[in-house]
Amino acid sequence: MSADLAAYPADTSEDAVRAFLGSAHPIDLAAWLALMPVDEAWALLSGLEDARRASVFENLPLGFQVDLAQHMAPDDLARIVGAMNADDRVDLFNQLPAAAQDRLARDLEPSVREDMRRLSTYAEGSAGAIMTSDFAILDADMTAEGAIDALRLQAPGKETIYRSYVVDRDQRLTGSVRLHALILAEGEARIDTLMEPAPVSVTLETDQEDVAKLIARYDLLAIPVLDGAGRLVGIVTHDDAADVMQAEATEDFQKISTVLPFTQNMRQAGIGMLYSRRIVWLALLIFGNLFSGAGIAYFEDVILAYVSLVFFLPLLIDSSGNAGSQSATLMVRALATGDVALSDWRDLLLREAAVAAALGATMAAVVFPLGAWRGGMDIAMTVSLTMFVAVLIGSLVGMSLPFVLSRLRLDPATASGPLVTTISDGLGVILYFTIASLVLNI
Amino acid sequence: MSADLAAYPADTSEDAVRAFLGSAHPIDLAAWLALMPVDEAWALLSGLEDARRASVFENLPLGFQVDLAQHMAPDDLARIVGAMNADDRVDLFNQLPAAAQDRLARDLEPSVREDMRRLSTYAEGSAGAIMTSDFAILDADMTAEGAIDALRLQAPGKETIYRSYVVDRDQRLTGSVRLHALILAEGEARIDTLMEPAPVSVTLETDQEDVAKLIARYDLLAIPVLDGAGRLVGIVTHDDAADVMQAEATEDFQKISTVLPFTQNMRQAGIGMLYSRRIVWLALLIFGNLFSGAGIAYFEDVILAYVSLVFFLPLLIDSSGNAGSQSATLMVRALATGDVALSDWRDLLLREAAVAAALGATMAAVVFPLGAWRGGMDIAMTVSLTMFVAVLIGSLVGMSLPFVLSRLRLDPATASGPLVTTISDGLGVILYFTIASLVLNI
Repeated sequence: MSADLAAYPADTSEDAVRAFLGSAHPIDLAAWLALMPVDEAWALLSGLEDARRASVFENLPLGFQVDLAQHMAPDDLARIVGAMNADDRVDLFNQLPAAAQDRLARDLEPSVREDMRRLSTYAEGSAGAIMTSDFAILDADMTAEGAIDALRLQAPGKETIYRSYVVDRDQRLTGSVRLHALILAEGEARIDTLMEPAPVSVTLETDQEDVAKLIARYDLLAIPVLDGAGRLVGIVTHDDAADVMQAEATEDFQKISTVLPFTQNMRQAGIGMLYSRRIVWLALLIFGNLFSGAGIAYFEDVILAYVSLVFFLPLLIDSSGNAGSQSATLMVRALATGDVALSDWRDLLLREAAVAAALGATMAAVVFPLGAWRGGMDIAMTVSLTMFVAVLIGSLVGMSLPFVLSRLRLDPATASGPLVTTISDGLGVILYFTIASLVLNI
Repeated sequence: MSADLAAYPADTSEDAVRAFLGSAHPIDLAAWLALMPVDEAWALLSGLEDARRASVFENLPLGFQVDLAQHMAPDDLARIVGAMNADDRVDLFNQLPAAAQDRLARDLEPSVREDMRRLSTYAEGSAGAIMTSDFAILDADMTAEGAIDALRLQAPGKETIYRSYVVDRDQRLTGSVRLHALILAEGEARIDTLMEPAPVSVTLETDQEDVAKLIARYDLLAIPVLDGAGRLVGIVTHDDAADVMQAEATEDFQKISTVLPFTQNMRQAGIGMLYSRRIVWLALLIFGNLFSGAGIAYFEDVILAYVSLVFFLPLLIDSSGNAGSQSATLMVRALATGDVALSDWRDLLLREAAVAAALGATMAAVVFPLGAWRGGMDIAMTVSLTMFVAVLIGSLVGMSLPFVLSRLRLDPATASGPLVTTISDGLGVILYFTIASLVLNI
């Protein structure tokens, strides 16, 4: 929810609040209520009429919905939940404690209860978990005019009537129909001539990110979700797909900086949660860094002989890590958006070698005079040569890690900057002092 | 375009290719043609009928469109461009060389030419640059039935008829109408009773990312774009908004790893372009790193006295940089999605201090035994104390940089990991050797 796009009541007077409650967009009303204590929010919510109240409620942050759910009477909760969209309903249900789930389930109408229980069985992050079962159905032998009448009747309970679906007697998907096509068609035209016969679809297990990618690729308003037998069981709409894309990008940002993913809003995230998500990799990377330390210990005599070498140590290992971090991040993002595929690895490696060689040569040329100024030609040679090789290796490692991780069926986003940095640190230390030993004849 | 979602002809036989040309989704056909040499692609494209050909053409990568445009006869180009969507048309026009632009403009119908020229004047990255002028208009005194008839007539040339707009005599936006509402309404109901009277809108200058955020916030299908006088001049649809969100996230990924932003597809990006986008920050950061080097030079006598101190140097500055990188990335993303606002800085700083203190204390406890093992209690104290302070400071710097950059009206995404790392390196070196001097009485 965007902090700077929020809308609020004109002032704190009763009239302004009442006007806002009556006319504000449900999303704006929800954002405003979520800033209050739960009891105050409920006092205002309970005064709204049923449809609007459900509409506002389902736009509240999920945690706030749970708090409210436990604050209000079970009957009130059942009334709201019964009027919610199917996908928002199950999202709330999944967050309630077991006792509250049982009570709510008992209070709901049987068809609503069954639908909710079914939707709640799907794995988080799958099409089943984000779909809604509120889709519009048409028969293949309807006329365009009859279909529009049917949609008029179905509309109040459906997520959208702009795209409806045609199924056979066994509920298997046979086609999809745009309202656009129905409007433009002759009233007597049959649905089976107007429908698209083999619509793009996904299955219950399809990853939510792939669902969102398909919706984006074909500019769809909605995509049908099928079960193992080809039966239509739900749809995912474009707005939910956009939310998924945003959440997936945020998760990749977290991973790329070695933070274990979390979905809480950054403004409200707790100290304990942030600590637990950040400490793991920080602690692990300490042990990775010991490798660099060991390298340095091995070369203690070189350091004692040429202390000025230490001057360049942070510079070299940072440069190598920075270059590797650039490669890794670009590749992680390209893999995530589908710009590149795993099969492109060899071509990309060759290109990376060319780019990294150019980068390394440039940076070697930049440090050469610095090395000469600090310690003469030998130091200049040592530092430049190390810079070139370290940037080259760091970049190749950075570029390759996401592919290697993918092939090992691990998440490429974990090939984060700091991970790449730590690896190239270790290599950089060994490289530097080895080259120094050779050039300086130690 | 997602490499692994592509669809291709069943095989290379003429029949399979002909079937694919006839029945494939325009997006899939475009993706397949873009893999061929330009002349082959044109040979296949020219055989399609006008509407389908334009539909496929506008889905080709922009660079490929430009290549094709210069390969085909000007008359053919004018025919295709005249049939394209208004927003795709101007995107192509803006990429053509001046001579080609003039020729194309002369060959187009006057109304199309004027519309294209007008759209081409808007700044890149603004609402004006991504909007289409193909929106549907209704009169306030139409009936629902009359409106549906009007939309039936307007439909072929419009981006969407699911959302239409009501304007007054001066073309100023007065309301927006959902087709859903028209379908459900009584045939005689007037538009001015069915419309939403003050729809969310943006201006020509609104940043494309803010346009996309509004569309996402309110789950809109389309959003109207107004000029300075409140006149409706275009709309931006949800699918273009989703593309903007993806592109903006990709740009942030590039910036966060100190790569100057670029829009080319990673698979096809050239060596020269990648080099130029990556070398700038890598070279600049070298000079940042010299600061750490200078710190080390200042403390050369400490190093000579206690060479084992150098063992921990990479570990300490990396840990500080990693922690800062985590903070910076989380904050950059939170600012970009609107989870936090600039005004939240003080609260967030306090929370970050608490989290960073906990992280620093944990990591200090981890390195303490390592320090004791390498060099006794004094080294252990030095290293632990430095770790605690370095992680604390690194985190606070990392968290604050995006806010400081924002307040200076600079892009917070530039507060990348490596930038934060370089700053905390310099501070870390000074901190480490100063603490060492004090603890070890040098």
